[in-house]
Amino acid sequence: MKRLVILGATGSVGRSALAVVRRHPGRFRVVGLAAGRSVAALAALAAEFRPTRVALADRAALDGRPELRAAGWRTGPDGVAELAAFPSADIVVNAIVGAAGLRHTIAALEAGKRCALANKESLVAAGEIVLDAARRGGGELVPVDSEHSAILQCIGEARPDEVRRIILTASGGPFRDLDAAAMVGVDAGMALRHPTWEMGAKITIDSATLANKALEVIEAHFLYGLPYDRIDVVVHPTSIVHSFVEFVDGSVLAQMGEPNMELPILHALSWPRRPPDRALCTFDPLRSSPLTFEPVDTERFPLFGLGVEAGRTGGAAPAVFNAANEVAVKAFLEGRVSFRRMAGVVSGALDALGGRTADSLKEILEVDAAARRHAASLV
Amino acid sequence: MKRLVILGATGSVGRSALAVVRRHPGRFRVVGLAAGRSVAALAALAAEFRPTRVALADRAALDGRPELRAAGWRTGPDGVAELAAFPSADIVVNAIVGAAGLRHTIAALEAGKRCALANKESLVAAGEIVLDAARRGGGELVPVDSEHSAILQCIGEARPDEVRRIILTASGGPFRDLDAAAMVGVDAGMALRHPTWEMGAKITIDSATLANKALEVIEAHFLYGLPYDRIDVVVHPTSIVHSFVEFVDGSVLAQMGEPNMELPILHALSWPRRPPDRALCTFDPLRSSPLTFEPVDTERFPLFGLGVEAGRTGGAAPAVFNAANEVAVKAFLEGRVSFRRMAGVVSGALDALGGRTADSLKEILEVDAAARRHAASLV
Repeated sequence: MKRLVILGATGSVGRSALAVVRRHPGRFRVVGLAAGRSVAALAALAAEFRPTRVALADRAALDGRPELRAAGWRTGPDGVAELAAFPSADIVVNAIVGAAGLRHTIAALEAGKRCALANKESLVAAGEIVLDAARRGGGELVPVDSEHSAILQCIGEARPDEVRRIILTASGGPFRDLDAAAMVGVDAGMALRHPTWEMGAKITIDSATLANKALEVIEAHFLYGLPYDRIDVVVHPTSIVHSFVEFVDGSVLAQMGEPNMELPILHALSWPRRPPDRALCTFDPLRSSPLTFEPVDTERFPLFGLGVEAGRTGGAAPAVFNAANEVAVKAFLEGRVSFRRMAGVVSGALDALGGRTADSLKEILEVDAAARRHAASLV
Repeated sequence: MKRLVILGATGSVGRSALAVVRRHPGRFRVVGLAAGRSVAALAALAAEFRPTRVALADRAALDGRPELRAAGWRTGPDGVAELAAFPSADIVVNAIVGAAGLRHTIAALEAGKRCALANKESLVAAGEIVLDAARRGGGELVPVDSEHSAILQCIGEARPDEVRRIILTASGGPFRDLDAAAMVGVDAGMALRHPTWEMGAKITIDSATLANKALEVIEAHFLYGLPYDRIDVVVHPTSIVHSFVEFVDGSVLAQMGEPNMELPILHALSWPRRPPDRALCTFDPLRSSPLTFEPVDTERFPLFGLGVEAGRTGGAAPAVFNAANEVAVKAFLEGRVSFRRMAGVVSGALDALGGRTADSLKEILEVDAAARRHAASLV
């Protein structure tokens, strides 16, 4: 029986994780739940899963709910951080959106937990620091992203020097076939209709701009210790093949399945074993035929190239890319910048701050804040 | 340094194995070579690889070549069998065509060797006996077939109870799109033009009738211990995806690569490690797009259904199927039966002899001989 803490329990990944737990009551037990500010949703989950500890990031979230405070609910970022290192937990699912999840990833790894990481921003903003936390604390980083889960499944027990290259797949998002002129008129409503995946708003916009795929390239760089010239991306519109691994002998393995976050979550909770689960809709070659692949159009999706270049630059650049992108996405969702202007905001922040170094968590957080201020000034 | 014996060294798989050895001189050394009757080709290979021992199955093959006999070359099936259990060999590549390879598979496994098996007929005719030889002698069976190599690569370190299903791919052969009426006129020349793989004559005809895929289903049944209802086949015309494995959690892995026997051979010699090899042309998703999949047309390819049904029946039926099919293919190559009549020959032999049991190698060899006689009478 594995004991789980789920951070971001009321979001898309959190709810998928709890759906997995519901189907495997003998395998997983929820000991902690945390959310941002969705009190009612979290209260319902707490009533169902009866965790030892519940926390909300928003300090004001329990105003007017004295019964929840009386029941031991914590509030504020420290309440959530306490859960990330909760002594009785084996696995911490970090499904918090954005750079806010970084400290919890570090806390879980320092406490020796398996961190099932949906918060890819942790690795993007502070890859070396996160890996160092895992080394120091004995924690283990397991990806929840479908692409990185696919890579882990393909690599299996192979040694790092047996991997030649990884190829991440990208759906291409809702604007894969839209010409550059038509992209001027894209609004948030259009960008939120993802063709293959149902996800939260932030990642759905990132999928429409392909910024998400750049974040995943950086994530893969840190997770699998591969230089950027050995990480490729190919557009695969139906999102059936979740990624490829090419080995040094020329063999290629791929992992495939219908798009559904529950499989990578179950895998992150169970790896290296595979528990039986009949609920997960599997790949059927006849139904999925044909599988098609296209190159990434870096002209129409400039955030992809900006992000990968930030990864190559290293230092503070990935953190700047991530922070400025979060600001740009929020402004786009609020109708304050256009779809095409998001890349300009991020590019401006990278020009101003991307050359900095950032070797400590403190410096990362400083550059993150500076990048947000700079990006906001460009909106 | 692994020491290799290659049985069937002058055939298609044998030559591919030697091409692999040429590229990895520090990794593999050839200590034994055997062939059927191709004296000149074998002499050239012996001069190049300088094995300790050379053998020819044909007793008369060295007539008029006293210098080769003086050099220690052996002849006759016992000379080949001696090589299969050669004390100084680590790995025996069994690339002999047809049921003639069975005793050598058993000899290698009983002697505790790794048997890199291209001779799928061994497992088809005598699966239980072959597995028992491996258990008794401590030998290890590793497939050279691209499909079974793909399955081994996908399964990796997973436990047997974590595999739900395997899906073998089939190119569909040269007559995939030929309607039933046109198949009446098919001759050996047409059947020998395989669309994706360059192979020996026997397996090329078996690929055209899909008998080869039935043999592979039976081979997979024994290699991976799966019941027949958990082994599926799908037609994949470009032969890029070599097979799929579906796990109990719903995840599917596939192995892919350009059609080339050298990769599965290198894998069989190296497994579970992967040595670097730049010569092997790898899968490129952009070049290979689209990947398509179709159901098997069992009406137009009756040998496929006959073979799988023989596998399900068990007992002597797979040996009868294999023996009668060898007779039918030989007769077809010699222009003595039509393409469509091959299934009738095999079906007749199965009707007459498929219900027998055969629990020992002696009984298998008896039923093999009886099936050959019966099939010959139907030609």
